[in-house]
Amino acid sequence: MAITGSTEVRSGPIRLGMVGGGKDAFIGAVHRIAARLDNEFQLVAGALSSTPERSVESGLALGLDRDRIYGTFEEMAEKEAARPDGIEAVAIVTPNHMHYPAAAAFLTRGIHVICDKPLTSTLEDAEKLVKLAKESAALFVLTHNYTGYPMIRQAREMVQNGELGTIRVIHAEYVQDWLTVPAEKSGSKQAEWRTDPARSGAGGAIGDIGTHAFNLLSFVTGLKTVELAADLHRFVPGRRVDDNAHIMLRLENGAKGMLWASQVAPGNENGLSLRVYGDKGGIEWFQEEPNKLWFAPFGEPKRLITRNGPGAGPAAARVTRIPSGHPEGYLEGFANIYAEAARAIRAKKAGEPLPSDVIFPTVEDGLAGMKFIDACVRSSEKNGSFVTL
Amino acid sequence: MAITGSTEVRSGPIRLGMVGGGKDAFIGAVHRIAARLDNEFQLVAGALSSTPERSVESGLALGLDRDRIYGTFEEMAEKEAARPDGIEAVAIVTPNHMHYPAAAAFLTRGIHVICDKPLTSTLEDAEKLVKLAKESAALFVLTHNYTGYPMIRQAREMVQNGELGTIRVIHAEYVQDWLTVPAEKSGSKQAEWRTDPARSGAGGAIGDIGTHAFNLLSFVTGLKTVELAADLHRFVPGRRVDDNAHIMLRLENGAKGMLWASQVAPGNENGLSLRVYGDKGGIEWFQEEPNKLWFAPFGEPKRLITRNGPGAGPAAARVTRIPSGHPEGYLEGFANIYAEAARAIRAKKAGEPLPSDVIFPTVEDGLAGMKFIDACVRSSEKNGSFVTL
Amino acid sequence: MAITGSTEVRSGPIRLGMVGGGKDAFIGAVHRIAARLDNEFQLVAGALSSTPERSVESGLALGLDRDRIYGTFEEMAEKEAARPDGIEAVAIVTPNHMHYPAAAAFLTRGIHVICDKPLTSTLEDAEKLVKLAKESAALFVLTHNYTGYPMIRQAREMVQNGELGTIRVIHAEYVQDWLTVPAEKSGSKQAEWRTDPARSGAGGAIGDIGTHAFNLLSFVTGLKTVELAADLHRFVPGRRVDDNAHIMLRLENGAKGMLWASQVAPGNENGLSLRVYGDKGGIEWFQEEPNKLWFAPFGEPKRLITRNGPGAGPAAARVTRIPSGHPEGYLEGFANIYAEAARAIRAKKAGEPLPSDVIFPTVEDGLAGMKFIDACVRSSEKNGSFVTL
Amino acid sequence: MAITGSTEVRSGPIRLGMVGGGKDAFIGAVHRIAARLDNEFQLVAGALSSTPERSVESGLALGLDRDRIYGTFEEMAEKEAARPDGIEAVAIVTPNHMHYPAAAAFLTRGIHVICDKPLTSTLEDAEKLVKLAKESAALFVLTHNYTGYPMIRQAREMVQNGELGTIRVIHAEYVQDWLTVPAEKSGSKQAEWRTDPARSGAGGAIGDIGTHAFNLLSFVTGLKTVELAADLHRFVPGRRVDDNAHIMLRLENGAKGMLWASQVAPGNENGLSLRVYGDKGGIEWFQEEPNKLWFAPFGEPKRLITRNGPGAGPAAARVTRIPSGHPEGYLEGFANIYAEAARAIRAKKAGEPLPSDVIFPTVEDGLAGMKFIDACVRSSEKNGSFVTL
Repeated sequence: MAITGSTEVRSGPIRLGMVGGGKDAFIGAVHRIAARLDNEFQLVAGALSSTPERSVESGLALGLDRDRIYGTFEEMAEKEAARPDGIEAVAIVTPNHMHYPAAAAFLTRGIHVICDKPLTSTLEDAEKLVKLAKESAALFVLTHNYTGYPMIRQAREMVQNGELGTIRVIHAEYVQDWLTVPAEKSGSKQAEWRTDPARSGAGGAIGDIGTHAFNLLSFVTGLKTVELAADLHRFVPGRRVDDNAHIMLRLENGAKGMLWASQVAPGNENGLSLRVYGDKGGIEWFQEEPNKLWFAPFGEPKRLITRNGPGAGPAAARVTRIPSGHPEGYLEGFANIYAEAARAIRAKKAGEPLPSDVIFPTVEDGLAGMKFIDACVRSSEKNGSFVTL
Repeated sequence: MAITGSTEVRSGPIRLGMVGGGKDAFIGAVHRIAARLDNEFQLVAGALSSTPERSVESGLALGLDRDRIYGTFEEMAEKEAARPDGIEAVAIVTPNHMHYPAAAAFLTRGIHVICDKPLTSTLEDAEKLVKLAKESAALFVLTHNYTGYPMIRQAREMVQNGELGTIRVIHAEYVQDWLTVPAEKSGSKQAEWRTDPARSGAGGAIGDIGTHAFNLLSFVTGLKTVELAADLHRFVPGRRVDDNAHIMLRLENGAKGMLWASQVAPGNENGLSLRVYGDKGGIEWFQEEPNKLWFAPFGEPKRLITRNGPGAGPAAARVTRIPSGHPEGYLEGFANIYAEAARAIRAKKAGEPLPSDVIFPTVEDGLAGMKFIDACVRSSEKNGSFVTL
Repeated sequence: MAITGSTEVRSGPIRLGMVGGGKDAFIGAVHRIAARLDNEFQLVAGALSSTPERSVESGLALGLDRDRIYGTFEEMAEKEAARPDGIEAVAIVTPNHMHYPAAAAFLTRGIHVICDKPLTSTLEDAEKLVKLAKESAALFVLTHNYTGYPMIRQAREMVQNGELGTIRVIHAEYVQDWLTVPAEKSGSKQAEWRTDPARSGAGGAIGDIGTHAFNLLSFVTGLKTVELAADLHRFVPGRRVDDNAHIMLRLENGAKGMLWASQVAPGNENGLSLRVYGDKGGIEWFQEEPNKLWFAPFGEPKRLITRNGPGAGPAAARVTRIPSGHPEGYLEGFANIYAEAARAIRAKKAGEPLPSDVIFPTVEDGLAGMKFIDACVRSSEKNGSFVTL
Repeated sequence: MAITGSTEVRSGPIRLGMVGGGKDAFIGAVHRIAARLDNEFQLVAGALSSTPERSVESGLALGLDRDRIYGTFEEMAEKEAARPDGIEAVAIVTPNHMHYPAAAAFLTRGIHVICDKPLTSTLEDAEKLVKLAKESAALFVLTHNYTGYPMIRQAREMVQNGELGTIRVIHAEYVQDWLTVPAEKSGSKQAEWRTDPARSGAGGAIGDIGTHAFNLLSFVTGLKTVELAADLHRFVPGRRVDDNAHIMLRLENGAKGMLWASQVAPGNENGLSLRVYGDKGGIEWFQEEPNKLWFAPFGEPKRLITRNGPGAGPAAARVTRIPSGHPEGYLEGFANIYAEAARAIRAKKAGEPLPSDVIFPTVEDGLAGMKFIDACVRSSEKNGSFVTL
């Protein structure tokens, strides 16, 4: 049972910087672990907080050299670009409204960007970022991390192989409970910025988690959503963004979907799930048990396909580290995005085309997510009428 | 561990007739088992098929006396009403379009009616039936059988007791796969009438199973739905009614819901489920594991409440027969509707008021279901706009 | 989706008497529902309690004619045997020590016996009963009810068809928690007699539930156990029989097994399960989700076979009433034993041989269970050494 | 939702060497990821294979300096001990028979040892190693990695807090299927050495996985096993060690346990589980869903405690990285052993006592495992009689 997927690295890790991700940030630490897990990246610089003292404190705690801890991302971009041993890539893990300016600073200097989702806080920024990314020689990788799960790769491969037939019905959910109460008023920094339209964007639940569900269904089915009807709602008094979203989808080939995103459903921790049904079969996947994929060929018993178990194909195997029955989790899935980014960056460095099987969410996927948020808001403002994306 | 719920009967079973339910009928046999399970009813007469010979054959096979097997329900209603030992109640288990005329024939003669769902095939019939039922001294019981499950009673009781707080979000599903293929064209009698608008009504999946999900969420939450937006679709070429329905709901207190009914989702056998979330807690129930109810008080670990186990209250206990861990199923839940009907009928016979804790779906519930179908069709014809119920 | 399995009856139900099963008895009520469910039996007589007044009260509550309610089983056997319309079969649902004398009274009069398990309270009685049953023209049916579950029939059929290859390893459990506390001292009649060696026999958990697990593994695998080593224990102070049993098994073909029976494992309601592994595949079944059978052919994904779903074969179909996804439970499985008994009794009445596919636990199976108890006790007394059965 | 548990490191990673773990080795790569995940260790030297060329090739692939890739562990121990920047700790991930000599070489030079399980291939070696470890200033950490799972820490804490009351019954399983066929004859290096008594020791399944289950039950309950009876078996023709083990345990306080280890149970990937029952409650944990712990206080509904969710206590929190609902897996659990080792090593370096809450499996735990194997073999040779450990 040799480790089959991700490789460990020969030619030295890629030099990485980070914007955001200081103390008390959740996602910054996740990015760092993900970057480190396969030994593909080494964190060497950071502008870890909008407060300079905090940035220094956090950087030292992470073992960064003092002179590579910066007060602002602009300074980091400028100085690192000037160093012969400067960062080759940067992870942007700030609140959403900073994604665009930060990404711009690095892309324009040819530094690869690995950016958290959603792409930006406004559709306008998103469109500018797409333009910038296209003009840049550097790569832009969006961490829609759930696409890194092996069984999601498996699901996508099965759809592509026609094992489900023509897709008819899609059901995607992303359900949590942590905003059941007004956590933004009781000191949770996470809740604070995620429910602040200025930092998070027009979407609350729909932006924070709905985009993940939307990205996932698009990734697995390969289908474009053409119209949607959305009923966004704020349940918690005083909340400034939606905390529950009900959405009906119409996809390009005539398929129909539902998407439910909620942060006020007690008992749901991180309930992302995807169910896809075609005229030949169906698949079901639940993020909290990510190593399992249910496959029901119509008229036959359901099968449980497991990561690295019998029935799992090459797309899953490529991003799998350990044998079946030894659960991989969220961090490994996240690390797969970094591992894919590393493959792409190394190809770039070598002047080679991207490997044909490398897969990561792109700036275009990010734009699609922003259009999704925008359409949800527009539909909801029109009393839930269908609108085009 | 004495049997706690339903009692066995002292004063002799109630005399029951049946309309429909001849050979090859699924639901007729279910009704007969349900009627018999607690020894509350005895089948003594039948008009079991629209084909008289088939009725006779079926009736003899069931051990009915030859002279109480009738060619038509009208004949049965007339002759049984005239007998001193005539039927006291009738089970109507025909295709939907016959519910109204059959029910009318018995209600007008003071014979209690236990009728399968949906109430009728048209809203017009439904409204006439409500009027008739109100004028009749006889009871009308609609077999929205899923309300008979103990853990559904438990869920309702918990909502009533305020254990969930104010209801915010509801998610109901009823997902099957048997119509993934055009079964109506390959000899399935069940598929044939259920996809024939003349016999089934304007709703396909939405009428056959969507009404169950709608009834269930109404039953458990006690909330009235005031508006909905629906996107009904026929996926199977040539099908005459919807086989997939996506619906967004708005309820009277500001709660929001989603309802998904599908008969084209491979791998789903009888996937009825209900999830209800309030500001204090959430509950989740899945029909295929009916003896379990998940309860998550916000901020505490999820609890698994089991039928007759610790944590189950009096509402569940009253309709429970055997100890926890000894699974009860679909037939027991269905039989609970009959047991409740029996309690009501016995009270009527004794000239007593209905017991305060007797619960069964009524003709009004049936009308609500027909309005739900009607609203879904109207919304869908208006490109999924919200309509009032 | 017509009801596929059990038929409803033409020629009138079989006349049934009952010994034991008065008020507060758990298993008596279960037998009555099971007998009634398929309309195959009608309860017409009873000696329902060892206390005559209680017998009368219970009998009247069940709607029996006063003159067919008896004070003792001897009286019932004698008088019913003398009636032209006397009972054809009797259900014996007393504490274990009464099984033998009651069964003897009816078998010797040619009345078929349906008897609860374990067979008797002593091995000596069991051997006498086997002899008696062989000499009698009447049938003896033991309600090892779990063999009535469709997916257990399915499992057995798959073993017989060689789908598992040569059986190697068996793991059977029957785990409960209700005797975690000394319930026998706080008024539970169930606990009282089940922990009284005089009424229950030498085995506590091992007799009450261990025999079920043992019967189940024997039924499914078709293999005879030749040796076992047992470590029986009484955890609750003052308890007079074992409440936890650990057993290692050796079977005739070289297969090995473990069996664990416990009534002191908090959180386990009625945790009977069976797992069987051969050189070609494995199956797993859990009583609390009886409609599912896991099948893992070696080197392929696990499959979930469901009652009446794709992949279920004829042995399961024959004892199935309703479509897949509509759960059947404990009572339906129990009723299958009665349905099989009815088929056998009707064949007897018609002077025909037993149908080749009729299956029910026999007096020989009961004797095997008593030998199992005896071996467990003997091994445990020898400090857990292996003993032969 | 800040990352709560493991910290990222300030003072630079600990310098690590590795013995074994060259190409195609499963567990070597696992150790490297685990060492790297929290940035606590940096691999700087290796004797990665018993074949020097292979060691060089593997070392270069891992980015080691050529002059710190060694042909033998003896050479590595000697040369690294002489370097001012030599390794501070070594991971030993060879087949079992090499654990002792390799560990000895480093311990005697004051280099901390992190060693895979089981401790050694013979009880004699184990005892010598215990002596050596006691005499050494260096730490010895055994990677019984499953003790690193947060919910196992939670379980242990709950037992210690008395939430289960007095422990009565324990059920531990470790069930796999990969040796259902003679994989050792078809080129699997893993199967080859694990079924070779010279390299693996006298135990097959019992040593490879049974020791994990035994360690886990000891770790969680804190109880010492005093006697056991074992029935070891080889099912696959030609296999040289046991591939299935049935064991009955007696523990110091009168508790009883069963342990089942199998590698021939089709459908089981890595089925390690632990169930513990006391007079006040029970807990259940399944390795393939490691983020969940079931807790059943007797007489109350079962509760599902999740990693970092409500109900999880400080012992779990300390080894948790990400929020509940974001699954952690095998690698994170394994990394917790390394993180604990790092805390201990850093305390040693600082001349401080070990932190009172640091927890890792010790050489004594390893000796207990070897005694367990030895007792199983002895019992099995005595036809499964109970023997003392």
